[in-house]
Amino acid sequence: MLNDKFNREHKHISLAHGSGGKLMHNLIKNLFLPSFGNPLLSKLDDAAVFEVGGKKLAFSTDTYVVNPLFFPGGNIGKLAVCGTVNDLAVMGAKPLWLSCGMVIEEGFDYDILSKIITSMKKTALQAGVEIVTGDTKVVEKGKCDGVFINTSGVGIISGDPLDIENIQEGDAVIVNGSLGEHGIAVLSCRTGLGFTTRIESDCAPLNDFIDEILSNSDGVRFMRDPTRGGLATTLNEIVEARDYGILLNEKDIPVSDGVKGACELLGFDPLYIANEGKVVVVVEKEKANNVLEVMHKHKLGINSAVIGYISVKCKRKVCMKTVSGGTRIIDMLVGEQLPRIC
Amino acid sequence: MLNDKFNREHKHISLAHGSGGKLMHNLIKNLFLPSFGNPLLSKLDDAAVFEVGGKKLAFSTDTYVVNPLFFPGGNIGKLAVCGTVNDLAVMGAKPLWLSCGMVIEEGFDYDILSKIITSMKKTALQAGVEIVTGDTKVVEKGKCDGVFINTSGVGIISGDPLDIENIQEGDAVIVNGSLGEHGIAVLSCRTGLGFTTRIESDCAPLNDFIDEILSNSDGVRFMRDPTRGGLATTLNEIVEARDYGILLNEKDIPVSDGVKGACELLGFDPLYIANEGKVVVVVEKEKANNVLEVMHKHKLGINSAVIGYISVKCKRKVCMKTVSGGTRIIDMLVGEQLPRIC
Repeated sequence: MLNDKFNREHKHISLAHGSGGKLMHNLIKNLFLPSFGNPLLSKLDDAAVFEVGGKKLAFSTDTYVVNPLFFPGGNIGKLAVCGTVNDLAVMGAKPLWLSCGMVIEEGFDYDILSKIITSMKKTALQAGVEIVTGDTKVVEKGKCDGVFINTSGVGIISGDPLDIENIQEGDAVIVNGSLGEHGIAVLSCRTGLGFTTRIESDCAPLNDFIDEILSNSDGVRFMRDPTRGGLATTLNEIVEARDYGILLNEKDIPVSDGVKGACELLGFDPLYIANEGKVVVVVEKEKANNVLEVMHKHKLGINSAVIGYISVKCKRKVCMKTVSGGTRIIDMLVGEQLPRIC
Repeated sequence: MLNDKFNREHKHISLAHGSGGKLMHNLIKNLFLPSFGNPLLSKLDDAAVFEVGGKKLAFSTDTYVVNPLFFPGGNIGKLAVCGTVNDLAVMGAKPLWLSCGMVIEEGFDYDILSKIITSMKKTALQAGVEIVTGDTKVVEKGKCDGVFINTSGVGIISGDPLDIENIQEGDAVIVNGSLGEHGIAVLSCRTGLGFTTRIESDCAPLNDFIDEILSNSDGVRFMRDPTRGGLATTLNEIVEARDYGILLNEKDIPVSDGVKGACELLGFDPLYIANEGKVVVVVEKEKANNVLEVMHKHKLGINSAVIGYISVKCKRKVCMKTVSGGTRIIDMLVGEQLPRIC
């Protein structure tokens, strides 16, 4: 059942298997899908969609292992609520109910745990979701790293669910602001790396923003949040095995000077850095300006921009017209750029 | 907002905070409930129940950190599916959709991961549930212990949800077989402990069994699965802050010779040892024999027995008539008897 070649090449799990990039996709395709395989899982969407009593529900899960636990603009608690809320929201769902499963390391400071919980509470209130069920495990000192938090979530989809199958040639690809801030913010506070610029994580619940977009405009085909593996990985997921690709314009991709500087310093590419408050919106070409207008009105969308188009000229690939006039292929993340970013 | 006294007494999280016993209940009541507090969570049921499109849904979560990963009768994968399936089933729900969130330690053997996944698949098939959404994180070597698995689950409740409020004086308390097998099976394969008797974990999906009970008998008031903290802790949860207690008959409580022997050797009490294929059923007195008859017909209920009654004579307490003729109070688990049992 398992892919033997993959198996032989990867006798042990590496950090890159959790990166969101190519190795993780291979792990999912070679191990998880053949085992669990069912139509819902096989879509590999940010959430599974099923029907109950005539209503469409979205169901999503994520475990957060970010290191360090606190970073400029957030902490693991805020992240754990935002991440799952956003995974539901990009499916077009209204997130409603969250679970919280904690693994805590023996000896963990009670006050820090309390700060994390308070942050989860605040973010849940902000996002309009309730944490309705939970579980707490404690493992011996040295058997986890402070605290890991799983949140799973259930939301209701009122309209038609957004579906990757809706995407068509010529559709505009929009992003709601500058890229890479979450990844660089987390990295900036790891031991030994000191930046002069303070870069804050963009970590935020996107559900209100997405609700504004969907309620006040039409033409939205598909959404996804570019978290682990960054924009490049998310766009590659969109075009994988499709008859179309994406053609980006480098000059239109918003990246802040702080992130640019940090990336130059460290040899990173902002397109591969994780975001936690960004959404990629694929929109019918003629409706793109309307959608942009709606996005610009919301505080999370002030810097929204069309960054490229769906094009049959680069099937299965993400290509980018560079500022210098060339065109380069933007591959999925290979290996591990920033472990434990979320 | 937090309980200051509790806070002062517990500056750091200990293993006992994850035991399922008194300290864990205090942690939940002093930290999680005041923060997340909402009517669904406050019930502290095995699953939250909410309505969608006129249907009642149950939603539950659990993270599994069992050590070792493989034990007689199961492994972490089987356990992760059974545990969440059972938490939904005891709410009277038909478990349908599961999520799977993995945290894997860098360097973890691919073949072992593959065995765990295969086991999850097999158990999911057996229980009639689908794993529809997932997440994989990898942390550096030494930052977790092999693999931790969170499963969350959603199920549909067709009849009235079982509710602790339904319990009445005189109700019979039934358990479906001998206690403590999961905990002792896990313990038996920890380094340095060798038993001559091989005790297998009772780890099993209970949903089919519970469905049989609910479909073929009436009078069931409430169910709960006695996992972490064992039967004693579950029964104490049932009577907490109630106008009634539970009066057990020691002679009627099924415990196998193997578990008895191991407990004597190690100084444990089988009433506090975790089970993963057991259910406590509280039944209207007059219907108890009918329910027992149905239970005896299922392979998971052959050794079902009435072990006691709801009684107003011991309010808020679990008391036990001992074999020697006395009566003793069975308190909730205090401290940590067996860490990382599930």
